Amino acid sequence: MQGLYFNGKQLFFRRDLPMPHRAPGEALVAVHQAGICGTDLEVLAGYANFRGIPGHEFVGHVVEADDNKWIGKRVVGEINIGCGQCDYCRRGIPEHCRQRKALGIRGHDGVFAEYVTVPEVNLHQVPAGISDEQAVFTEPLAAAFRPLEQVQVRPEMQVAVLGTGKLGSLVAQVMATTGATVFALSHHLERVRFLTERGIRVMLPSGAKPATFDVVVEVTGSQAGLGQALQLVRPLGTVILKSTTHSGAPSNWTAAVVNEITLVGSRCGPFARALQALLKREVDVVPIIDAVYPLSDGLVAFEAAHRRGAMKILLQMESG
Amino acid sequence: MQGLYFNGKQLFFRRDLPMPHRAPGEALVAVHQAGICGTDLEVLAGYANFRGIPGHEFVGHVVEADDNKWIGKRVVGEINIGCGQCDYCRRGIPEHCRQRKALGIRGHDGVFAEYVTVPEVNLHQVPAGISDEQAVFTEPLAAAFRPLEQVQVRPEMQVAVLGTGKLGSLVAQVMATTGATVFALSHHLERVRFLTERGIRVMLPSGAKPATFDVVVEVTGSQAGLGQALQLVRPLGTVILKSTTHSGAPSNWTAAVVNEITLVGSRCGPFARALQALLKREVDVVPIIDAVYPLSDGLVAFEAAHRRGAMKILLQMESG
Repeated sequence: MQGLYFNGKQLFFRRDLPMPHRAPGEALVAVHQAGICGTDLEVLAGYANFRGIPGHEFVGHVVEADDNKWIGKRVVGEINIGCGQCDYCRRGIPEHCRQRKALGIRGHDGVFAEYVTVPEVNLHQVPAGISDEQAVFTEPLAAAFRPLEQVQVRPEMQVAVLGTGKLGSLVAQVMATTGATVFALSHHLERVRFLTERGIRVMLPSGAKPATFDVVVEVTGSQAGLGQALQLVRPLGTVILKSTTHSGAPSNWTAAVVNEITLVGSRCGPFARALQALLKREVDVVPIIDAVYPLSDGLVAFEAAHRRGAMKILLQMESG
Repeated sequence: MQGLYFNGKQLFFRRDLPMPHRAPGEALVAVHQAGICGTDLEVLAGYANFRGIPGHEFVGHVVEADDNKWIGKRVVGEINIGCGQCDYCRRGIPEHCRQRKALGIRGHDGVFAEYVTVPEVNLHQVPAGISDEQAVFTEPLAAAFRPLEQVQVRPEMQVAVLGTGKLGSLVAQVMATTGATVFALSHHLERVRFLTERGIRVMLPSGAKPATFDVVVEVTGSQAGLGQALQLVRPLGTVILKSTTHSGAPSNWTAAVVNEITLVGSRCGPFARALQALLKREVDVVPIIDAVYPLSDGLVAFEAAHRRGAMKILLQMESG
């Protein structure tokens, strides 16, 4: 089959990839569209020491499955594959399984190919009212909803979303569903002007008043983001950490202790809630798309995704 | 009067300090004993750019006050002095007032002297069943109780207290009052052997199993502490931040996001609860005392407090 392959050093487009082997409990999915995520760029930079077919954001249809009810269904899929045995898997949180695999990230081939295998328990059927190009946002949109499972956001609150890239522009819209006053802090104001239609106030980070926000969502993907978030959050406020790229040292870290800030790491989220939001048009995802490339132009697509200020780049498979 | 004075560069013992001027609403307190805290050492290293009489942990008796009921009473006092006007002061959280002063730390002389002025609203009377050398621990013990106001600690939980210095050995005992299984991780096992009488398991940090603790309290006062705490906490667990000395995020910071850790900054705490714990002998504080020096030996006392592995150093005033 056709697909992208990462050998640990370089990404290749290949037409000679073997069809994936369907393990017990897995479905074989023909991929329609797939999205390039910041994590994919990190994987290609060496994160998780992955080799194989990358990619984890997808929509497709089921070709083969143990359970016949899935055959032919249009689906999206959760990315974490738990061991099924450990305390976290038994408690229904396979995303924190210590031996977990993850589609296109760790121990399991991903979705930048014509076909992928996915555990049937990970699948969610896509309602007819959601297009493919909307459905491919289910995984990042679920991640954008995750903070609402972790932190109470109330209508009287002021929320700053720091960074308005692929994920940040979803997070801002999710925060706006709570009725809170949401500020999207961006260096690319024109690119995310569409957020104002959701009542979100789009402004430069320098325009935001320090130490005033009840909640700051740090989704810059940059090393400076955490320090900026600590400047913006009010005493006793909450910073939600979405970026995984910090290795550096915010000089104002002491403020987190002195001002008794709560910081909450936040990763994967609820697919069902994301699909509901897409169906009910609670969020706009199409304006986030920069371009759609055919799978065979995957290397060009990755170049586009690497560009500074790039938003969502999609790959279109022939089966889509 | 006699006292210690910090000129921004050096600490002096002086016999010629003026008596403090009692502002409206303040009481004049004759200090009996005072404790040297890690923050005092930071103040002398330049923290908060303080000049004047340092020190904030004390017990004494009231000599003058606006309200006669205080005269002659034995007291301890909260250290934060709010402006009384701002949103935090009006909500009863002067410890987060943006213009706050703090005894011996910011904008107000402290307690390493024969006399100090303290707002009457900051005072707490010390019950007769508590000795001076116990009462002087009220402020740090209140800080040790603060995490229980912020995070729910339940009996089935495993709690690691990372660092068993002056504050850590209090935090470990406070955590043990919840019924949780508490591990005190220490490089000075013999010095904190008394904690085992409270059911606390004392061990080297290297003996603790990574990624297993529901709650980790980081109270090492060292820059390596946060990284160690992130190694110890389980996925979805909580790290309570007591140390203010970190200059940056550690190398495993990404784990905080991927494992969805909650980090909670924690500072000053409830005096009433601390006094109750001292009265009911819920915690032992006397074993934490390394030495008691007369005020006139204050410079020697600070040398002792600076020594690696030092526990609590107290200053004894003549009025005590």
